[in-house]
Amino acid sequence: MAGSRYTYVKKFELPDNLLPGTYMVVRIDGHGFHRFCDQHSFTRPNDERALKLMDRAAQSVMEEYADITLAFGQSDEYSFLLRKDTKMHNRRQSKILSLLLSLFTSSYIFHWPKHFSDVELKYPPSFDARIILYPSSQEVKDYFAWRQVDTHINNLYNTAFWALVQQAGESTTQAHALLKGTQSAQKHELLFSRFGVNYNKIDARFRKGSVLVRETQATSTPVRPPL
Amino acid sequence: MAGSRYTYVKKFELPDNLLPGTYMVVRIDGHGFHRFCDQHSFTRPNDERALKLMDRAAQSVMEEYADITLAFGQSDEYSFLLRKDTKMHNRRQSKILSLLLSLFTSSYIFHWPKHFSDVELKYPPSFDARIILYPSSQEVKDYFAWRQVDTHINNLYNTAFWALVQQAGESTTQAHALLKGTQSAQKHELLFSRFGVNYNKIDARFRKGSVLVRETQATSTPVRPPL
Amino acid sequence: MAGSRYTYVKKFELPDNLLPGTYMVVRIDGHGFHRFCDQHSFTRPNDERALKLMDRAAQSVMEEYADITLAFGQSDEYSFLLRKDTKMHNRRQSKILSLLLSLFTSSYIFHWPKHFSDVELKYPPSFDARIILYPSSQEVKDYFAWRQVDTHINNLYNTAFWALVQQAGESTTQAHALLKGTQSAQKHELLFSRFGVNYNKIDARFRKGSVLVRETQATSTPVRPPL
Amino acid sequence: MAGSRYTYVKKFELPDNLLPGTYMVVRIDGHGFHRFCDQHSFTRPNDERALKLMDRAAQSVMEEYADITLAFGQSDEYSFLLRKDTKMHNRRQSKILSLLLSLFTSSYIFHWPKHFSDVELKYPPSFDARIILYPSSQEVKDYFAWRQVDTHINNLYNTAFWALVQQAGESTTQAHALLKGTQSAQKHELLFSRFGVNYNKIDARFRKGSVLVRETQATSTPVRPPL
Repeated sequence: MAGSRYTYVKKFELPDNLLPGTYMVVRIDGHGFHRFCDQHSFTRPNDERALKLMDRAAQSVMEEYADITLAFGQSDEYSFLLRKDTKMHNRRQSKILSLLLSLFTSSYIFHWPKHFSDVELKYPPSFDARIILYPSSQEVKDYFAWRQVDTHINNLYNTAFWALVQQAGESTTQAHALLKGTQSAQKHELLFSRFGVNYNKIDARFRKGSVLVRETQATSTPVRPPL
Repeated sequence: MAGSRYTYVKKFELPDNLLPGTYMVVRIDGHGFHRFCDQHSFTRPNDERALKLMDRAAQSVMEEYADITLAFGQSDEYSFLLRKDTKMHNRRQSKILSLLLSLFTSSYIFHWPKHFSDVELKYPPSFDARIILYPSSQEVKDYFAWRQVDTHINNLYNTAFWALVQQAGESTTQAHALLKGTQSAQKHELLFSRFGVNYNKIDARFRKGSVLVRETQATSTPVRPPL
Repeated sequence: MAGSRYTYVKKFELPDNLLPGTYMVVRIDGHGFHRFCDQHSFTRPNDERALKLMDRAAQSVMEEYADITLAFGQSDEYSFLLRKDTKMHNRRQSKILSLLLSLFTSSYIFHWPKHFSDVELKYPPSFDARIILYPSSQEVKDYFAWRQVDTHINNLYNTAFWALVQQAGESTTQAHALLKGTQSAQKHELLFSRFGVNYNKIDARFRKGSVLVRETQATSTPVRPPL
Repeated sequence: MAGSRYTYVKKFELPDNLLPGTYMVVRIDGHGFHRFCDQHSFTRPNDERALKLMDRAAQSVMEEYADITLAFGQSDEYSFLLRKDTKMHNRRQSKILSLLLSLFTSSYIFHWPKHFSDVELKYPPSFDARIILYPSSQEVKDYFAWRQVDTHINNLYNTAFWALVQQAGESTTQAHALLKGTQSAQKHELLFSRFGVNYNKIDARFRKGSVLVRETQATSTPVRPPL
């Protein structure tokens, strides 16, 4: 073949198969989303349209890849859990990472107009991604617990912070200073006493993030075992 | 901190820094583009709108990441070359792979309407990607030569194939059978004698692919050395 | 420092930490041991001195590295199991692989004279090694089951083979031909009927390999949990 | 086969081929050699017998593996350079690392009695090893320059240190304190003025380390290109 003298360059493509028998978590994060939120006037502390768009992008990924059993999203990040026995693309890291990330990104832009009907997308946003392997289900549970605790901590802080800025007229610098070192209970109290906000009544989506779970139906053939 | 009992799960994120002093090639490929082309009625054998859209997406990537010096595209694939001394994200594989891929994907959807003004995007397309390391400039040259030879071989075949199908009314099966085992010269001859096509007069974009090169300007400070 | 202009070369030493929470198996294999056995006139099909020397080398490794809980040896190979929570050398692959292998090799040569008192070592033997990660205890059990089944299959074959050669005067080619395709029961029968050998009475070390287990003592401080 | 239900465990052995077209340096280091030197009464600051034994072990490795072109040794470390186009064991990291390390270790113990005729080996010493890849010959040169500069710095310090201890009767603590922060020229001067030692006249093996080079002979068939 005419090109055969060049094909030796293919030998530099090394295998990157991930360890069998381990759970894969693919975590996708917004890249430069502070600026992206500013430029597109996202509502603070939470923009419901933006969160639902993230959920929609995650839904596309779950519909396409059957070995994803669970996904968790908050803010500009989403984590996908793949079955520990997945044979998807022979467990090749670059392949799995890139396919999930690319479809997530693509779906985010594709569905933008339905979620932000009156906001034109000014430039293409992007995300980064990584794969983390977990040997046991305990570690998987703790991973998702970690992300959910993080959601709670960030959202409580942000809710108090933006109340101080938007309703009490504090500068962002002052708001940070006021919250510095406060405990969770103090932020709850601040929200209630100064702004009449019962934090526990805030939309659960904001406080707890989004969870997508694949339902398995009972059939006569063996169903997949639970996580 | 409330979540500290879970943070041990971060230890499962292993470093993935790539070998210093090597050229990185990031190759992005359309995933399931046979169907995507069909569903969006791409012109055969080449759709100029689609190729220009690929170029536009690649341009976004080059504009964002200054350490990309060269890019080559054909069909539904694009290859980006990063400087061998790039320090981008400390040469972390997942970070570099995912940022380039995500922005490429995002820009492709973002710019779709300008390139396919009368074709609505039916679903979000996706791409996969990989990083290949090359230790020397000779291997880099041969990599791009390999992709360009591939462009030539594929395009000559496809040009002959679709002439047989679209102009001579052959079935796709017959067209494949007629071309099987033919040499390059025979395909040139077939195009010229049966269809009056001088293959060398076909748009260079179709025959040779697209090349994007970063220009460096003479300044008083030292410019980056050439590849 | 005088040498500082060269120290950039240290940056090419990339991290190679192994996934936390997984069992490590380090398997060491004799390199070129067919020739080594010949040159040192090892008894066929099993040389008890050689097997005990392997056990002695493995014992040195277990004495030195407390996170090894189990070892299994047969013929010229030995497998070591490390605790899944081992922090040894921060789980760096090259470090763990090389330390165990080097001490095994060293101890093998060091103890040779005690086991082969009348056989001079003609040249230094060597071994290779690899690390395999297993996420769950089931896979670890199956790994050791696999090695023990392999021991049984090989030893039954070799016992029959060498009986045919040494006692029945068959050539090695004839012996292989006679055994080709035979089932386990047929080899038992052959040994019993032609050579009066009850295979199940053969030394268990030959039939089943060697197992080294670390004993843990009850103490007032918490002991390590069992595998 | 009887054991086939267990053979799935082989799938956990992942490929570990190293990038083609790169130089490999395998560096072997003594493990716990401070104690080993003490226990075997090595001469300070340099023990010629020990250094020659290291050279002998390295020679065994070079004789066995033809793709090693160069080796450099000092103190209890040795570095081996493999040709960048080596195909040895398909460039599998564990295989190459373990074979060189194991033979080096083995040869060290095997040849001990010839170099330390009156010193009995009290226990088996061990070494660790790593592989470092270098894309270009400049980095390889700088690697060996780095090791040789290190040899010089360490040896000059150790020579002055042990002169203070052995000849001037200083404690090791005092000797360290006296040398702290001194420049190279000051150590030369100290050795000359207090101990009458012209450092440049000291055995080159001590000052510069050992280099082993593979000679290639002119033949009618093409010889391997130089590094």
